[in-house]
Amino acid sequence: MHTLLTRIDHVGIACRNLDEKISFYESAFGLTVVSREVNDEQGVREAMLHVAEGPAGSSYIQLLEPLGPDTPVGRFIERRGEGMHHIGYGVTDLTHALSTLAADGIRLIDERPRHGSMGAAVAFLHPRGMGGVLTELVQAPLAE
Amino acid sequence: MHTLLTRIDHVGIACRNLDEKISFYESAFGLTVVSREVNDEQGVREAMLHVAEGPAGSSYIQLLEPLGPDTPVGRFIERRGEGMHHIGYGVTDLTHALSTLAADGIRLIDERPRHGSMGAAVAFLHPRGMGGVLTELVQAPLAE
Repeated sequence: MHTLLTRIDHVGIACRNLDEKISFYESAFGLTVVSREVNDEQGVREAMLHVAEGPAGSSYIQLLEPLGPDTPVGRFIERRGEGMHHIGYGVTDLTHALSTLAADGIRLIDERPRHGSMGAAVAFLHPRGMGGVLTELVQAPLAE
Repeated sequence: MHTLLTRIDHVGIACRNLDEKISFYESAFGLTVVSREVNDEQGVREAMLHVAEGPAGSSYIQLLEPLGPDTPVGRFIERRGEGMHHIGYGVTDLTHALSTLAADGIRLIDERPRHGSMGAAVAFLHPRGMGGVLTELVQAPLAE
């Protein structure tokens, strides 16, 4: 079977203070913020820091600060503390990937693509079917 | 400042049963195992699954099964369950990166490189200084 995944698009990291964490990654590693957004649907304030360029697109660190305690990332930090929250893989055709995975019995959180960072279409797979790993699939916008 | 990091080398995922998890990633995503090793020093049985190729090297998912309950990964699973364990970034000169980070006051677990997967030299940074993220730096072997 051909792989569905084109790259590690990003690793999502939950933090209490976005600005502080951005400064840390900038000064420790020399990473650069390429996008800052508020995603009300997901309840986060976020920044994408560019790590590398590849033939299938870029890789990022995504820093996520919850908009409040009663949000998915807020509850995650309450329960487990700051740290790695999810992994996002690149795919070329998200709708196709979702129907392939659903047909294989993989448990989806999102049955249809929704709005992700930097104009991407994204969908999450349930961590319970993924060995505890909250997994996101990312289809970059065509213009990229 | 120039970035120290060349890519996301891998995401390390702690699991209870390596063979089961390899089969899952193979069948769900079509990923391929490129290396299997036992690392006695780190107390793990592990597999590297290739995700993507980039100009600075490949990206992998690293599946980690503890050799016993009294190992770092065994204790991690006991405490938090299966899931994302660490992130590994590529660097071109690990010794230089470690001295730069130490000079910046970043807390290191390993002051000197040690043996990692597939012949790489690796070193871990302490999660307490990294916002809860266990962070590994990876210098691929010259032959790669």
